[in-house]
Parts: sequence; C-alpha cells; structure tokens
Amino acid sequence: MIAEIITIGDELLNGSRVDTNSVFLAGRLDAIGLEVGFITSTGDGMNTLVEAFHQALRRADIIVTTGGLGPTDDDITKKAICKVFKRNLIFHENVLEELQNRFAARGLKMPAINQNQALLPQGAKFLANATGSALGIVIDEQGKFFCAMPGVPSEMELMVDRELLPILKTMIGPAVIIRRRIRTAGIMESALAELIRPALKLADGVSLAYLPSVRGVDLCVKGVGAVADEVRSGVEQLADAIRDAAGRYIYTEDNRELEEVVGALLVEKNLTIAVAESCTGGLVGGRITSVPGASRYFKGGIVAYANEVKIDRLGVPAEILEQHGAVSAETAVAMATGAASALGADIGLSTTGVAGPTGGTEEKPIGTVFVGLSVSGQVSAMKFNLGVDREPIRGRTVTIALEMVRKNLLGIE
Amino acid sequence: MIAEIITIGDELLNGSRVDTNSVFLAGRLDAIGLEVGFITSTGDGMNTLVEAFHQALRRADIIVTTGGLGPTDDDITKKAICKVFKRNLIFHENVLEELQNRFAARGLKMPAINQNQALLPQGAKFLANATGSALGIVIDEQGKFFCAMPGVPSEMELMVDRELLPILKTMIGPAVIIRRRIRTAGIMESALAELIRPALKLADGVSLAYLPSVRGVDLCVKGVGAVADEVRSGVEQLADAIRDAAGRYIYTEDNRELEEVVGALLVEKNLTIAVAESCTGGLVGGRITSVPGASRYFKGGIVAYANEVKIDRLGVPAEILEQHGAVSAETAVAMATGAASALGADIGLSTTGVAGPTGGTEEKPIGTVFVGLSVSGQVSAMKFNLGVDREPIRGRTVTIALEMVRKNLLGIE
Repeated sequence: MIAEIITIGDELLNGSRVDTNSVFLAGRLDAIGLEVGFITSTGDGMNTLVEAFHQALRRADIIVTTGGLGPTDDDITKKAICKVFKRNLIFHENVLEELQNRFAARGLKMPAINQNQALLPQGAKFLANATGSALGIVIDEQGKFFCAMPGVPSEMELMVDRELLPILKTMIGPAVIIRRRIRTAGIMESALAELIRPALKLADGVSLAYLPSVRGVDLCVKGVGAVADEVRSGVEQLADAIRDAAGRYIYTEDNRELEEVVGALLVEKNLTIAVAESCTGGLVGGRITSVPGASRYFKGGIVAYANEVKIDRLGVPAEILEQHGAVSAETAVAMATGAASALGADIGLSTTGVAGPTGGTEEKPIGTVFVGLSVSGQVSAMKFNLGVDREPIRGRTVTIALEMVRKNLLGIE
Repeated sequence: MIAEIITIGDELLNGSRVDTNSVFLAGRLDAIGLEVGFITSTGDGMNTLVEAFHQALRRADIIVTTGGLGPTDDDITKKAICKVFKRNLIFHENVLEELQNRFAARGLKMPAINQNQALLPQGAKFLANATGSALGIVIDEQGKFFCAMPGVPSEMELMVDRELLPILKTMIGPAVIIRRRIRTAGIMESALAELIRPALKLADGVSLAYLPSVRGVDLCVKGVGAVADEVRSGVEQLADAIRDAAGRYIYTEDNRELEEVVGALLVEKNLTIAVAESCTGGLVGGRITSVPGASRYFKGGIVAYANEVKIDRLGVPAEILEQHGAVSAETAVAMATGAASALGADIGLSTTGVAGPTGGTEEKPIGTVFVGLSVSGQVSAMKFNLGVDREPIRGRTVTIALEMVRKNLLGIE
C-alpha cells in the first residue's frame, strides 16, 4: 500500500512557511511500515485542491491531508472533499453541541463562525480533535482511505497519534519493521561517523541514517524483513556496534529528550539544579521546564544579560568580568556557582557566549560559548565553538549545557 | 503560468529530513511573480519519479526539480528525464574536461565516479554549478519548461539565483503580485474573523488567508492582476478595512516578530525590561533575546520555578502565595514588581500558570495563566485560558506576555 500526504495552504507555496506537518506525518507513517510515495503541497484554490485529491486517489491507497479545515472562508478542504467524492455538506447538530460545551467549559462564548465546524461531508467518519474545533474527516470506500485533518500542528499531531494511527495499523499487513533511535549529544555528525564507521557491519535489510539537529545527532537504525527474529538480531548487532564505539555520547535509546534524561538522573540522585544564562537568555530553563514535573529538581534561574545582573544577582566578581570578559571560563564558573548559591540548588549550570550577529572578536569569534558547571561545589567550564548563526548557536548551547550535566552525573569524562 | 516544484529523495518521505529546498524555491519563484501550484516530494524510485514528472508536465508549465543528480547509483533523475522526454544520455567531452580542470585547480585528482557527471540528456541546455559537479539540466520545448537541479542546497541556491531566475524572468509576463502580511497577537482566529468579516470587501484578484500559530494570527493579503495600480489599490483597500476593524491587535505589517516590535518600542521610549517567569521557565527571556542587540533594553530575568525563589529572589510576600496561590493575579503582580526592582529595570513582566499535564484544579484548570506587568511602578495583571497542552500553553503565554507590553507601551486598552 502506498500513502500520499497532501498539505494544504497558500503559505506553503510562497516560501513563507516550512511544511513541518508533512515531515511529522511521513515519520509516523514510515514508523508503522507504511510506504509514503508522494508528498504534495498545494494552495487554498479549489481547482488545484480538487486536482491534487484526484491525482492522489489515482496513485495512492491511503491519502492523508492537513490544513484548510478552519472556520474561515479561505478554508475550503471540506468543499473540495464534497466535489471529489460527490456528496453534500450536512449540518451535524451533535458536533455543534459538543463544540459549544467545549467553549462553555473554558468560560467562553463560542464565536458564531465556529458553527461552520459542524458542517461536514455526508457519510464521513470523524476523528476527535482534543484541542481544537475542527474534526478530522475520514472517507473509507472503494479501496481508498482518505483522511483530512486540521493544519495546526499541535491539533494534527494529537489526532494522528490518538485517532489515525490506530486505524491505519489495523489496515496494513504484518511486515516486520524494527527501529532503534539512538540519540547522541556533544559530538558533530562527521566526527560521530568517523567513530562508528569502522565498526559498522550492516546485515541484510538493516540500514543506518544520521539525523543531525541543534539537539544532537540521532542515529536511526532500521531493519525490515519477513522473520522477526532475524530482523531483531540484525538491528541489535548494529546497535551494539554503535554503543561500543560511541557509547559515551548516547543519552537515550528510548526516544526521550535530553532534558528528560537529565531530569530523571537528578531525581534519582536527589539533586536540584539552577541555571544562570547569558547568551541563551532563558532557553536552558525553558527546555528544562518543558518536562512535566521539573519542579521536583529545578529551582529556577537567573537570566543575567546585563553585566550588572551578573554582579548583583549572581555575585560574579567585577574583577573577573574586567579581567577575563563576560565570555570566559572564569565568568562561566562564577555564574554557575552564583546560580547554585543564590537559588539554593545543588547544581549550578551557566551559559555565556557570543551569539552574534555582532560582538565577535578575533580572540572570541561569533559562536564562542562557555558552559559552566558547579556540582556540590566542584566547578568546571568548557569552551565550544558552535557555528555562525545566532539561533543555532543558542540552540546548540542549550544541548551542550544539558549534556555536560548528564556526563557529570554519570561520571563520564 | 503555473509552476510545480519537485523535490527528490527517499529521505524526504520518511520524516528524517525537512524539505528546505522547496521552501527556498517557492519563495524565489513567488518573488518574481510565478504562481507555484504544487510542490511534490517523491523518492529515488524510477516509477514514482517518472509518474511525478508526467503529472507535473500535465498540470504545470514550468517544472523545477531538485535532487538525484549525483554520480552514485541512487541518483536517477537523469535517467527519469530520458524516459519521460524519450531521449538518450550522451557523453559530453567538454563537460568532463571542465570538471577535471576544476578538480585540478584545487590540487585534487577527480574521483573516477565523477565521469558520470558528463553523461547528460541529448539536446538539453545546461546551467552552471558554481560549487559542485552536477550541472543543471533544462529542457524547454512544446510550451513546457523543465529544469533539474542538484539537491545540495548551497549548489542549488546559487544555480537558481545566477542561472535559473534570469531565464524565468524573461519568460513570464509582467503580471503584478502584491502581498501584505498583517500580523496580530492576543486574539483567536475565529474571534478575529468575526471582527473583520463585516468590513471585508474583496476586490477582483485580491484574497485573504488566516495563518494561526502560537505566535498569533497572521493575515495574508494577496493581490494578483495585470495593472499595478489596480492591484495595489485593491490590496490597500482590504488592508485598510482590516486595520479599521482590528487595528489594536496588529503588531506589524512589515514581517517583524513581536519581540522585535516590542524591542524597538523599548529603545524608542528608552525603557529597560526584566522578566520573572514561572510556567514559561525562561522562554520569555529566550524570545526577547532572540533579537540581536536585545542587551540595549533587556536586563535579564529570574526564573522562579520554586516558591522559595519567588519569595527570596523576587520578594513575593509569602502571605500572597499562601492566600492566593502561586497562580494568581496577586502573585503575577508581585513577581513583575520584584523582577523590575531586583534587576533594576523600568518594566517587569511576569508569567505564572498551570501548564499541565497535571496540577489543574476546578478553579484553575490546566491552561490558566496570569501575566503580570509593572511599568514604572504602575501594575496590572491579566488572566488567560490558553488550552490544554503544555508546550502550546507555554508558547502562547510568551506571545501574550509580549503583546501585553506592546499594548501598554502604545496606550492600547
């Protein structure tokens, strides 16, 4: 069976928005063993939309669309579905009632325009939307499975995981696909490749892909075959070889984020942490607190953008700032120590660097970042060079800071 | 004329890579007035590739592809072109010579596999590749313009700007496209639609699209036509109507981010800001400091996740926390005041809320957020209900907090 993903919206065709929905969907469909043959993006015009639907129904068995289900006039996916499948939009009283209840529960009056959300194609099945007003629409007939979902990523993603995938899994056959995502941090893709390549032996049907981002490099191991035991052993062989060669950089093999891994370690060791951030401006704290329950180990942070805040709130000695500069190992250490002591935490973690686009010098060019760490009074700092673009530099700094905590807690040099 | 972009590569179909080439190309084509009708991504298989090319030749006039031009076995775009256009690959001696010279100039011996790069479809024209070994391939006949380019972004981007766009510009007529992106914050899509709909009169060729995200709702106005003055007046008419109806929610019409707008206002008014964050954990500071030069107005922040940090570092009275709870207007105000005074800023901005997935109560369900503001001693707080999912709640909180500052600085109620 071949799947086609169709993402809908004028914003996708003029370069103003990256189509992340198709990436998410492709990953999810691939993960359950569905082959994605095509991804099509098209605009909010009726003719092109109908053309794209017809085309997909010709060449794919499973068609999944996102976008164009909102209540406003430019959202025409439902009308296009009606044209293609030759049916009417009918008013669903129960859908409207549920929507009104949802607004009421939040203490809000439902804007009248949302009544449109209860106008849905005749004879379709619906997928619940946990957080928004647009239902998913499924038409499953004559050997084709067509599903339209909203384009808001958070709504679509929940709908896929809770509603769509369970249906698709029952539809597709029992080919064995086994995956491991081995997540690393603190090492560049090319260095990682050099490290693990000599050890690499790929069994039949087993493949390895590198997936780099500001959050580190994920190693995606995939095995496909008919016999479960064989596939599993091929995948495990490769995973073992990766572990032997690059184990110290691996922070998880079970799809957790680095901040979750660090959080779990802190809970296990009964330690608390506080942050002092300069170039990251709060992003380290932001990532630590993306984990529900972070309050068990995260005391808080001080974003010390101005030097006076570093001095007054973190107790960084003015002499250190004068002598070594705000971007230095000495300042990083003083910030980390200061955060731990000001906020009463066992661990202090600090960032200071030149994120650009200005402020670079020959000695400390853009991308120079120091991460400081203080663990129960033991201090250290490391220097990194993290590229030339402001936001990637800041993102990588967050990852590297968290990875420094992980390595320290596990005694990895 | 309609353009179709085709991006080629298995990595685009399994969720492991974001397709940035199509975003770049769509932006460039849109900028010269070419309407992109479809973006298709497909894999390295011959059948699907041929199918995608045929399909594009049916529904588009200009087809631009990226990927699959490399020298290795999995690069089959040239073979697919030969199938579709019924011609042979022939060996181009001059192409090989130039390639060998290029390697020689860098003091390198050309790997033999690169000989494949001189095998090119008969009767095609070629586009120079300034930095790589694969030429662009152009077939321009029977009213269709087909261009295949390499998939390496840096090679493709130079080729587009230096080689492709000059050709396309001479092909397309002088159709006028005018766009406005009117960016709003602090109002839901449906409420915004209700507000502006009564005032909406769309001139011929003028369209409006809503683009919601955690950063607010963008209104995308587009006008297409033959006469520049008419298109401009139609677009301005619509923009005026939107401004009249929803002006107070508009933070920019020139593609800036909200944090840039707020930053510029702070500079203009010579004011400094500090933040006190609970549920956002640092993300407000992170977004403020995403703007280069934020140090002119951003002093820093205190991430007060633990109550003791709220008390010790922000001076929030313990009685307020006991009486009203950490998630309350009173705490938000005390946090904002505390941040301004602790960090020596004119403005204090605070967030405190229930981001979930646990911690909700009947009185303060998940999504309840208070934003506090202290501007030169004048305090205020507002309560919001921002949904049910942790990360969108946190993202929306950041937007709403920044928008509160903007409205305050501009005296918008």
